[in-house]
Amino acid sequence: ESSAKVIDGKAVAEQIRDEITAEVSRMKDEIGVVPGLAVILVGDRKDSATYVRNKKKACDSVGITSFEARLPEDSSEHEVLKFISGYNDDPSVHGILVQLPLPSHMNEQNILNAVSIEKDVDGFHPLNIGRLAMRGRDPLFVPCTPKGCIELLHRYGIDIKGKRAVVIGRSNIVGMPAALLLQSEDATVSIVHSRTKNPENIIKQADIIIAAVGQANMVRGSWIKPGAVVIDVGINPVEDAKSRRGYRLVGDVCYEEACKVASAITPVPGGVGPMTIAMLLSNTLSSAKRAHNFQ
Amino acid sequence: ESSAKVIDGKAVAEQIRDEITAEVSRMKDEIGVVPGLAVILVGDRKDSATYVRNKKKACDSVGITSFEARLPEDSSEHEVLKFISGYNDDPSVHGILVQLPLPSHMNEQNILNAVSIEKDVDGFHPLNIGRLAMRGRDPLFVPCTPKGCIELLHRYGIDIKGKRAVVIGRSNIVGMPAALLLQSEDATVSIVHSRTKNPENIIKQADIIIAAVGQANMVRGSWIKPGAVVIDVGINPVEDAKSRRGYRLVGDVCYEEACKVASAITPVPGGVGPMTIAMLLSNTLSSAKRAHNFQ
Ligand SMILES: NC(=O)C1=CN([C@@H]2O[C@H](COP(=O)(O)OP(=O)(O)OC[C@H]3O[C@@H](n4cnc5c(N)ncnc54)[C@H](OP(=O)(O)O)[C@@H]3O)[C@@H](O)[C@H]2O)C=CC1
Ligand SMILES: NC(=O)C1=CN([C@@H]2O[C@H](COP(=O)(O)OP(=O)(O)OC[C@H]3O[C@@H](n4cnc5c(N)ncnc54)[C@H](OP(=O)(O)O)[C@@H]3O)[C@@H](O)[C@H]2O)C=CC1
Repeated sequence: ESSAKVIDGKAVAEQIRDEITAEVSRMKDEIGVVPGLAVILVGDRKDSATYVRNKKKACDSVGITSFEARLPEDSSEHEVLKFISGYNDDPSVHGILVQLPLPSHMNEQNILNAVSIEKDVDGFHPLNIGRLAMRGRDPLFVPCTPKGCIELLHRYGIDIKGKRAVVIGRSNIVGMPAALLLQSEDATVSIVHSRTKNPENIIKQADIIIAAVGQANMVRGSWIKPGAVVIDVGINPVEDAKSRRGYRLVGDVCYEEACKVASAITPVPGGVGPMTIAMLLSNTLSSAKRAHNFQ
Repeated sequence: ESSAKVIDGKAVAEQIRDEITAEVSRMKDEIGVVPGLAVILVGDRKDSATYVRNKKKACDSVGITSFEARLPEDSSEHEVLKFISGYNDDPSVHGILVQLPLPSHMNEQNILNAVSIEKDVDGFHPLNIGRLAMRGRDPLFVPCTPKGCIELLHRYGIDIKGKRAVVIGRSNIVGMPAALLLQSEDATVSIVHSRTKNPENIIKQADIIIAAVGQANMVRGSWIKPGAVVIDVGINPVEDAKSRRGYRLVGDVCYEEACKVASAITPVPGGVGPMTIAMLLSNTLSSAKRAHNFQ
């Protein structure tokens, strides 16, 4: 008796990758330029290594050249900055990504600020965030995960303008930029965070909910207005004896309950997750197009 | 039968100016440095000339040195940029303000971007706005009018954390930064704008209302939750045969109705208005302190 349409992020992400593949090849044919993405990985955290490998694979699959710098855990900030500066100056690199978290002896802010604003495909530079917040100023890049959320709404033909939207979470990388994006599309936006009292009262008023909290199943079915659209960014491991790994991944929204109330909802996994990398590829392609003035 | 406490912006602004006067004189005594504010005025709009004169007077009254560049209406963008660059390099200037609006043949964005971020006492540079939006990044300057709104809440001992706040209006200079400031103090913020449907329903939920719309008496008493705090930024002329000038100034909130419902409210004039210049002086002082590492 689930009534919600499932927003299939995996399928949309694949479609976007196909579009990118076509554009990359057109660019190569017409002007001989191949977009390039450089990833800097410091240390040997397993999860980070996996993310970097996935990004490399994704680049390969659409024809974007990938560059990789792996530095040992005990590198100095100065060494990382040298790599960034090299990529900043390299015309075959159009996007630079520093895999986080960095080792604790490094100043993350210094390092991220060193990435040229023209190659900040993560969109985390304060100048990009400021432009995103301001009317009449366009950011060079929009952060990938929130951009993916909005892209899902667009591709499913969901109206944003004039709608009530609630974003749960206000992190620099997801919640805050998601709220700015919804507002730039003329939603009326409220932001819920850990200090919000009775969050369910506000959430219940929303036509569009974006949840980016990191709390398994926090948003219950009874918190959702019938017919609302739910975009669930959360990726949370919960114990599951039936799973081979002993756990499974769930979102910030209780899917089983929500899918009976919402008109459309993203599953976890297979919702927002696949969109993040697709948006990274899209930002890298845009950057290369901008650098070469290619329409 | 008005029950609301009147938030006396004029009195608070005077108190702040006294504090600034004391700090300016302490700075001069201890390190021999006098803070300086430079204002650039292009053209001869009467209202702009009045604003500039008021800023100059305010500087004089607290002991801040003021510099002024007046350029003719038909100056080139290049000439304006030359003055900005001169002030950027001048160590006796700690704040630079370009009086808006600029003549229509100039690119406002180019000109504002030329102001050194260390001297951007208006706080309008996208890098400042980005830092204001991001958690863990502090802006060098906070835009004066929204900073004045928050300062009034602070000085009247009004709690912000955990409160529901609604900002009406989302301009780059008032509404948007006001919302970011409230959020950085842990209010749960909603932003109402011209595309919002049934704004009264959202406004009615707010413990704190900041109205920055530019629509005389738009917010009615019935839109306000009993006991809410109302900060009215609007300054709107309405016809008034009884006034010598033929008009008087009113806010965006219908004061006569609101003062019966709210627990505290700013009047217009005499509320937020006087705070804006006080915050400009405060930003100039902070800038001078930062430049000379003076605590
Ligand atoms: N699909 C994808 O590609 C991605 C998924 N994610 C996932 O999204 C989730 C959020 O990530 P991220 O934004 O980085 O997380 P952060 O931990 O940086 O931010 C979490 C936010 O949620 C708020 N919050 C925490 N608890 C509550 C609560 N009980 N009620 C309301 N708000 C609360 C916090 O509030 P406060 O600010 O007050 O502390 C904070 O703003 C995680 O599950 C993460 O794994 C993240 C990035 C990409
Ligand atoms: N006290 C002081 O020192 C200062 C006072 N002011 C005063 O504050 C007011 C606002 O100034 P400013 O921010 O520059 O103005 P702007 O015109 O730049 O912005 C007005 C905002 O109000 C929104 N708005 C317009 N009509 C409605 C409506 N009917 N319902 C809801 N929202 C609406 C607009 O929405 P949208 O974005 O959708 O168009 C816009 O975001 C003015 O009266 C101005 O004189 C301003 C600066 C300093």
